[in-house]
Amino acid sequence: MLKVSARSAAMPASAIRKLVPFSEAAEAAGVKVYHLNVGAPDIKSPDCAIEAARNRIPSLHHVSYTNSAGLPELRRAMCEKYYKSIGLYIQLPEILVTVGGSEAFAIAMQIAAGPGEELLVVEPYYTNYQTFAFLNGITLKAVHSDIDNGFNVPDISEFEKLLTPSTRAVLLSNPCNPSGKLFTREEMLSIGEFCKKHDLFLICDEVYREFCYTDEPYFSAMQIPGCEDNVILVDSVSKRYNLCGARIGCIVSRNAEVMACAMKFAQSRLCPPVLGQITSIGALDTPASYFEEVKAEYIRRRDCALRRLNAMPGVFSPVPYGAFYTVARLPVQDAEDFAKWLLTEFRMDNQTVMVTPAASFYKTPGEGRNQVRIAYVLEVPQLEKAMDVLEEALKVYGNV
Amino acid sequence: MLKVSARSAAMPASAIRKLVPFSEAAEAAGVKVYHLNVGAPDIKSPDCAIEAARNRIPSLHHVSYTNSAGLPELRRAMCEKYYKSIGLYIQLPEILVTVGGSEAFAIAMQIAAGPGEELLVVEPYYTNYQTFAFLNGITLKAVHSDIDNGFNVPDISEFEKLLTPSTRAVLLSNPCNPSGKLFTREEMLSIGEFCKKHDLFLICDEVYREFCYTDEPYFSAMQIPGCEDNVILVDSVSKRYNLCGARIGCIVSRNAEVMACAMKFAQSRLCPPVLGQITSIGALDTPASYFEEVKAEYIRRRDCALRRLNAMPGVFSPVPYGAFYTVARLPVQDAEDFAKWLLTEFRMDNQTVMVTPAASFYKTPGEGRNQVRIAYVLEVPQLEKAMDVLEEALKVYGNV
Repeated sequence: MLKVSARSAAMPASAIRKLVPFSEAAEAAGVKVYHLNVGAPDIKSPDCAIEAARNRIPSLHHVSYTNSAGLPELRRAMCEKYYKSIGLYIQLPEILVTVGGSEAFAIAMQIAAGPGEELLVVEPYYTNYQTFAFLNGITLKAVHSDIDNGFNVPDISEFEKLLTPSTRAVLLSNPCNPSGKLFTREEMLSIGEFCKKHDLFLICDEVYREFCYTDEPYFSAMQIPGCEDNVILVDSVSKRYNLCGARIGCIVSRNAEVMACAMKFAQSRLCPPVLGQITSIGALDTPASYFEEVKAEYIRRRDCALRRLNAMPGVFSPVPYGAFYTVARLPVQDAEDFAKWLLTEFRMDNQTVMVTPAASFYKTPGEGRNQVRIAYVLEVPQLEKAMDVLEEALKVYGNV
Repeated sequence: MLKVSARSAAMPASAIRKLVPFSEAAEAAGVKVYHLNVGAPDIKSPDCAIEAARNRIPSLHHVSYTNSAGLPELRRAMCEKYYKSIGLYIQLPEILVTVGGSEAFAIAMQIAAGPGEELLVVEPYYTNYQTFAFLNGITLKAVHSDIDNGFNVPDISEFEKLLTPSTRAVLLSNPCNPSGKLFTREEMLSIGEFCKKHDLFLICDEVYREFCYTDEPYFSAMQIPGCEDNVILVDSVSKRYNLCGARIGCIVSRNAEVMACAMKFAQSRLCPPVLGQITSIGALDTPASYFEEVKAEYIRRRDCALRRLNAMPGVFSPVPYGAFYTVARLPVQDAEDFAKWLLTEFRMDNQTVMVTPAASFYKTPGEGRNQVRIAYVLEVPQLEKAMDVLEEALKVYGNV
C-alpha cells in the first residue's frame, strides 16, 4: 500500500498553527477573532525598508540568485550597521544570511548534533525546536524552568544531571519564546562555562534581542569570554524590523568549521529570498528612535496583558522582560481543549480569542497542560477587549 | 573535543557551487569569467512581476507572515492562470507554496521516504537530490541513462532490478537537469505504471516545464491516468519567470495525506517569503508571447552551444530538448580538475570559462568523470566567445 514515510506521518503538527483551520472557520462565519496566538506583530515596518524595496526592485533586470550566504552588501550592513552598534564585532566570514530565523535554527541544530545525539534545552521552549529535532533524529532533554519561579534558570547542577556521552549542545532562546524570560549575565556566563567544560555547542536564539524591557544592557551569548568556538547564534532580521514575512535571518559563529558546514546547507537551497534581502538592506538604516517607540508600545501592551491576566480568578502569569509573549496558567485542566472550544463554540458579542496551548513547549510529561502562551501583539484597546473576552470565556468554560 | 556533527561534516559540498571561491578570486583579479556553470538565466523578468512588486509593496503597513501554505491569492492564481492554461486542473488544497523548488523537493522526498529507505532515480540527476537524501538518511539507487544513447530512459526492467522492500519512490526531473532530456509520453506512462504496480510515489520535478524545445505538447506526471495518489509534483514559479532569486515554488499532489504532511513541514518554517509571493502573483499575468520569445532565445543558444561543442575534437554532447543545460563529454580524464584549472590557471585574453563537473550528477562510481554540465544561459555572442575560450582551453589542457 502507498504510504507516506513513517517519520513524516509521525511528525508533530505545529501546536501554534494547528488551530488555524478553526479560527479560519470562525472568521469565515463573521466572528471577530483576537489573535493572541502567534508572534505576528501589527507594528509598522520601518519606512526605510519599504523605500529600499520600492526604489531598488524596479531597477532589477532580472531577479537572479545571490550568493548562497546572501548578498555581501547585506552581510556587511548587518555587521557594520547593526552588530557593531550593539558591541558585537562580526567579520564577514562569520555571518551567513538564512531564510528567516527558522532556517538559521534548523541549520545550527544539524551542525551541532546528528541522529541519535542529544541537546539540552531549557523548557518551556519554542515548539519548533522539537519539530526540527524530531526530523533529524535528535533527542531534546529538558532542564525545567518553572512558572512559579518566574521561569528562572535552574542551577547548573540540573544541566549536569542530564549530561550523557551523546550530549552535543545547549539550546536556548533569550529572551525566551514562549515565557518572555530574559537571561541574566550571570546565567549566561554559567551556561557558557558549562558548555566549555563539556565541549558542547551553545545554540542561542536571540531573535527577540531588540525586544527587552529592562534598563540592563542585553548580554549576548557572543559576549561570553572564551566561548567563541562554542556559540552558534541564531538571529532574525525580519523579526527585528517587523518584516516577519520577508524571511531574512542569519547564523553567526566565530567557529570556522561551523560556518563551513553552514555554507554547505546554504548551498543546498541555493540562496535566501532576494527581495527580502533588498528590503533588509534598507531596514538596517532604521533609526534608534524606532526601537524606542516599539519598546514603549510593547511595555504598554505587556503591562495591560499582565494586569488583566493576573486579575482573573485562578490565572497566574509571571512578568516577562523580553519578547512579546507571556505564559499564563489558567484554571482549566486542558488548555488545548479550552483553546479549541474558544474557536469553535464560545462567542461573546460575536467575538472570541485565539491563544496557544503551552503543553508542546514542554518536554516533561504533564507540564504546561493548564498553561497557554499569550502573544501581546495587539494595541492596548484591542488587547483590553481580547482580555474581556478571555475573562468571560474562563467563567463560562468553568461551568460547561 | 568540540566537533561538528558527523553528518554535517560528511555532507557533500555543492558540486555546482564549490568552485565559486575560485571564480570569485579570478574575477577579483580582473579576469572575465563566462559562467556556464549555474542555471541563472540573464533573461529579463516579466514587467508585470516587477510592477506588482513596485505597486503593492509600498502599501504594506507591515510585512507579516502569510499562511504557511502561501497567500490564497497566489495559490488561486497558480491554479487558475497557470495550471489551467496547460490543462491541469488543480484544487486549492492540492497546492502549497514553497521556498523555491528546492524546498518543494526536500519536502517531497521526506514525505516519500525516511531514514533507511530507498529512492530510484534516473542518473544523471540534479546533484542536490543526493544532498537531501544524505541529510535524511535516504539511499538513492540509480537507473543509468547513457550519454551515448542520448540519455534515453532505459527499459523498465532496469528499474525492476533495483527494487527492494525499502524502495519508496521514483524520482526524476523532466526536462532533466543536467542532461536536458525530455521524457516522452510513453516513458512517463511506463514509469507511472511501474509506480502504481509497486506502490511507489513518483516525485516529478517539472521546474523546467516551460523550457521545452519540441512541438510535442508537454506531458506532465500529473496527467498519468490512475497515478493520482502516487504523483508528487515539484514545481517552481521563480524559475519559470526568470525570478530565480524570488524563491517561490510549490508542491502539488492529489494525495490528501501527502498534502497534510506537506503542511506540517510548511508550518515548521512559518511561511514562504512574502515579497516573492507578491511578485509571483504579478508574474502569473505574464503573456504567452513572453515564453515564446524566451524559448526562441534558448533554442538559438542551445543550437550555438551544441554546434560549437560537437565541433571540438573529442567532445560529444547529445542534443537537449528541454531546460537550459547540456552534458558534454570532454577529452579529459578528470573534469573536476579541468574545471578548477580553468578558473585558477587558464586565461585567454584574460578570459576564462566556468563549467560544472558532472561526476556528482551520477551515483554509479566512475560515471561522468570526463563530463561537464554546460548551462547555455548567455546571449549567443557571449556564448560564442565562451566556446572560443573552452576550445582553446581544451587544446592547452591536453598538453599540460
